[in-house]
Amino acid sequence: MENRYFARIAALREIMARENWDAVVLTASDPHASEYPAPRWKQVEWLTGFTGEAGDVVVTADHAGLWTDTRYFIQANRQLPGTGVELHKTRVPEQVLIPEWLGRRFPSGSHAPRIAVDGLCMTAQMAGDIRSATPDCEIVAVPNLLDALWIDRPAVPSTPIEMLDAETVGESREHKLLRLREWLRDEAGCDAILLTALDEIAWLLNVRAQDIDYNPYVISYLLVTKDAVQWFADKGGGAAELSGVVVLPYGAVTEALGTLSGRMYADPSSLNLSLLESIPQGVLVSGPSPIPLWKAIKNEVEIAAMRKAHLADGLAMERFLYWLETQIQSGATVNEWEAACKLQSLRAQIPGYKGDSFETISAYGEGAALPHYVTPHGGGATLQPNGLYLVDSGGQYLTGTTDITRTVALGPCSALEKEDYTRVLQGHIALSSAVFPKGTAGCQIDALAREPLWKALRNFGHGTGHGVGFYLGVHEGPQDIRQNFNPQPLLPGMIVSDEPGLYREGMHGVRHENLILCVEAGTSEFGTFLGFEPLTWCHFDTAPLDLSLLTEEERAWLNAYNARVYELLAPHLEPEVAAWLHEKTLPV
Amino acid sequence: MENRYFARIAALREIMARENWDAVVLTASDPHASEYPAPRWKQVEWLTGFTGEAGDVVVTADHAGLWTDTRYFIQANRQLPGTGVELHKTRVPEQVLIPEWLGRRFPSGSHAPRIAVDGLCMTAQMAGDIRSATPDCEIVAVPNLLDALWIDRPAVPSTPIEMLDAETVGESREHKLLRLREWLRDEAGCDAILLTALDEIAWLLNVRAQDIDYNPYVISYLLVTKDAVQWFADKGGGAAELSGVVVLPYGAVTEALGTLSGRMYADPSSLNLSLLESIPQGVLVSGPSPIPLWKAIKNEVEIAAMRKAHLADGLAMERFLYWLETQIQSGATVNEWEAACKLQSLRAQIPGYKGDSFETISAYGEGAALPHYVTPHGGGATLQPNGLYLVDSGGQYLTGTTDITRTVALGPCSALEKEDYTRVLQGHIALSSAVFPKGTAGCQIDALAREPLWKALRNFGHGTGHGVGFYLGVHEGPQDIRQNFNPQPLLPGMIVSDEPGLYREGMHGVRHENLILCVEAGTSEFGTFLGFEPLTWCHFDTAPLDLSLLTEEERAWLNAYNARVYELLAPHLEPEVAAWLHEKTLPV
Repeated sequence: MENRYFARIAALREIMARENWDAVVLTASDPHASEYPAPRWKQVEWLTGFTGEAGDVVVTADHAGLWTDTRYFIQANRQLPGTGVELHKTRVPEQVLIPEWLGRRFPSGSHAPRIAVDGLCMTAQMAGDIRSATPDCEIVAVPNLLDALWIDRPAVPSTPIEMLDAETVGESREHKLLRLREWLRDEAGCDAILLTALDEIAWLLNVRAQDIDYNPYVISYLLVTKDAVQWFADKGGGAAELSGVVVLPYGAVTEALGTLSGRMYADPSSLNLSLLESIPQGVLVSGPSPIPLWKAIKNEVEIAAMRKAHLADGLAMERFLYWLETQIQSGATVNEWEAACKLQSLRAQIPGYKGDSFETISAYGEGAALPHYVTPHGGGATLQPNGLYLVDSGGQYLTGTTDITRTVALGPCSALEKEDYTRVLQGHIALSSAVFPKGTAGCQIDALAREPLWKALRNFGHGTGHGVGFYLGVHEGPQDIRQNFNPQPLLPGMIVSDEPGLYREGMHGVRHENLILCVEAGTSEFGTFLGFEPLTWCHFDTAPLDLSLLTEEERAWLNAYNARVYELLAPHLEPEVAAWLHEKTLPV
Repeated sequence: MENRYFARIAALREIMARENWDAVVLTASDPHASEYPAPRWKQVEWLTGFTGEAGDVVVTADHAGLWTDTRYFIQANRQLPGTGVELHKTRVPEQVLIPEWLGRRFPSGSHAPRIAVDGLCMTAQMAGDIRSATPDCEIVAVPNLLDALWIDRPAVPSTPIEMLDAETVGESREHKLLRLREWLRDEAGCDAILLTALDEIAWLLNVRAQDIDYNPYVISYLLVTKDAVQWFADKGGGAAELSGVVVLPYGAVTEALGTLSGRMYADPSSLNLSLLESIPQGVLVSGPSPIPLWKAIKNEVEIAAMRKAHLADGLAMERFLYWLETQIQSGATVNEWEAACKLQSLRAQIPGYKGDSFETISAYGEGAALPHYVTPHGGGATLQPNGLYLVDSGGQYLTGTTDITRTVALGPCSALEKEDYTRVLQGHIALSSAVFPKGTAGCQIDALAREPLWKALRNFGHGTGHGVGFYLGVHEGPQDIRQNFNPQPLLPGMIVSDEPGLYREGMHGVRHENLILCVEAGTSEFGTFLGFEPLTWCHFDTAPLDLSLLTEEERAWLNAYNARVYELLAPHLEPEVAAWLHEKTLPV
């Protein structure tokens, strides 16, 4: 059965025929290369019905394809039938990415193809990749390419701006701008820098908004020159209060760039093609932005605030887990969605709560076996008084961002559930207690979190850790902890997640996640060593443990961690929850 | 005081002035980019007196510099005074490598420099690096550049050739050539391949010789075309017996290359500049040779033979350690050199022994604190009945190559010696018993061997493991186990060393090294997993252990390993040695 997406693609093909476009490429991102775009830019979803967070589309006269990775194969196979769109798998050994696919579809020497793209939603980098693979193509950058078809397309969001002072974030806007201008002069040798990534702009200006779900960003561009700061944001009143910052309409950036001279720096991984084309010849200096690293290294104020945010978040988590256990034991009917709502309502009571940091994964049994499970809104599996329940969630607070996963037993567990639960916890402990020389990158210690699983011929397919922002994105670079090579060393002040897992399709899933802060562990004649300090405080359930697997050191770590949870949280909990937590944190 | 090396450099400068050379670059390698060159190519040593195994030289009118790495700083500082040569440190953060240094010395726009190099002893790759850094230079490739000065320069060595049959190495020359020609046609799309790396030629032709100390190679080049095999080697009689292989003089390669047409493949990391210049325009296709990976994956015959070689080698090691303990306990005077000679004499009794696989490091106390200590010929420290003695050695046998390090207590040890000894052993055990998914590279598991040291703020500055050949080089690629990024996965059949260490300058050193074979560990729903099997069998001394540091698993591993050593070796040992080994391998 052909559905409405099939019709939309047919309508797009009519435009293609009229415009002499041989192919159209649309990405799942926005003009800022955001990980989570606002509804206005969910073009792939509008065109194909595919709702996965990562997926790009190519349409030609005779083919429509969706490129997405391992996380979304099941979802794509469910959502694409009837659309005429074929799934192209990425992050598999046999992957053929879009630039390469276009290169093969339009081989050199044949008719030179015209490839139309939404110039706003394609990075300069990806356009370069397409041009390299298809050297004789013409890339036609059309801003808002789907506008003619997408009648009820949402507008660019424009929520109120929140300004954070230096006491809240530890460094004034003026000081951050000073750092940036020094870098621009001394390191980049440029007169100006254009910032296009939303989290970089939010960090630099100490501003937040709610333009995008879960990500407190202001949709805008920022141009910093030696003596001016021009902020292109549709923000009217609030924004005008930023001293030293000239606020201009979001759409005015193109014209402003067109009049530039001198040397302007920009990062091609977030600069979009339409902006690139508006920059006069010879002005652009391409290179990585220095801000991700500055932003990743939290200052003392941010660290102290993050600790507070995590204590408050831990209280919400413990209240939730107490409620959950009480409900299940009393025989109440609770489904995955209701559990997620309860947790959100508890977080919402925390002063400074701004929203969740991502959509809660509330998953029982086989749902938890999907690492990126989406809890069905208003429903999901009913929790039973047995087996494992997994909840991965986090909050955005004025004092920071949290991200925590706990897996708990709702009743008796199988031997396999217990073994998986315990081995994943061993991996979590190994990374959390790791010590390593300064200069070590995350990929060099990732194996520590996996070896307890590998020893039992088990593994998990996602990264072990990602960077986390300060009341910013719950995913940020440049550091991470995963198998893939990333040379960025871990540095004191960086925050990463520690989240090994294990997933058995159709059965159960386990993940244990804390956020951990990179700190100095000591210095000796062999150099300076770093380690981690947990930021997250919420007990690990001891019920599903297979104690025979734990070493003495692991047992000691777990007991000390749980004891510390009780010590930190109990004074702030209701008496019945504190008493329950006391039982839950007794040493094993 | 200026010495004879100062005079040699002055004489070189006279030639430079006459020839209008602005700089001369000489490397520590030979025309085959060998790790250990024959005496004929020890140009850096002849010119500067520096005897380290790695070190390149640049001479200009006003500067003479030696570039070498961390391993040789102490040695260079001892050997360079009086020569006028300055040390340039490499493998340090502030390193400026030769191409970059030349680029700065002769900046673009100044007089275009003429840089003379020994064209035979410089790879095409390094010449390319120099050209990139100094774009307007002229590189003058002079074969045997030092000949005019180096009157008594040794000749190209030419020792008898040994031919190995398929029963010995598991694959006939014909079959290896078939594989290579298929690869050449299907993967490289070439008509011919020029092999210049000596270990690749020895492996492909199933030949060995003793042209280079410790490395059983034949100094030669090999040109394989679709229908001919031309071997450029000064080998007369023996070589003529290789059916299907035409033997030509070593020096005839240049002329042969000059007449080539079609497409010829060669690896720029071992192709020298003089050969490169003799290849007609448009013929050369540069790329990595496929042979290192083929050679690294041992076949069943090689693995079975390696196991035998290691049992015989273990017997020699145990006899040596027994002799050593007996000598020290009886109050005899033994110095480091005498101990090394005794070990060699025991290895020499093994049938099929061809020589050592590298120069034995026999080091007591502070000598052992230098990871690359060279035992003074005829002397060295006298062993005392206390503290730690380290011996790193190996043999070349018709049945394979060995490499083993043991550290043993000659009497009472300090608490620090014990702690270091134990933590290094924990690292060794962690790597040896590691399990990891197929596709994992060495750099992804290196941390396992270091974490027990890192936890105590200790570390070592060398790699944890290197590949080992089959009656070939004791160091071979493409795999290794170290912090540096190397994407080559470990694969079943590969042999690597497992050799963490710890070095305290002026005090003591510890290293524990086995060779381990990569094997399949099992397959599950999570994929195929690999692990290691020890090839080396010689007990680890339990006397210097700090047992309080060992986990139950580590203790079990050690007891099982030592018990297996006794079980395997005792039946072949003299009764008194077997009885001693029984004591040495009692469980702890």
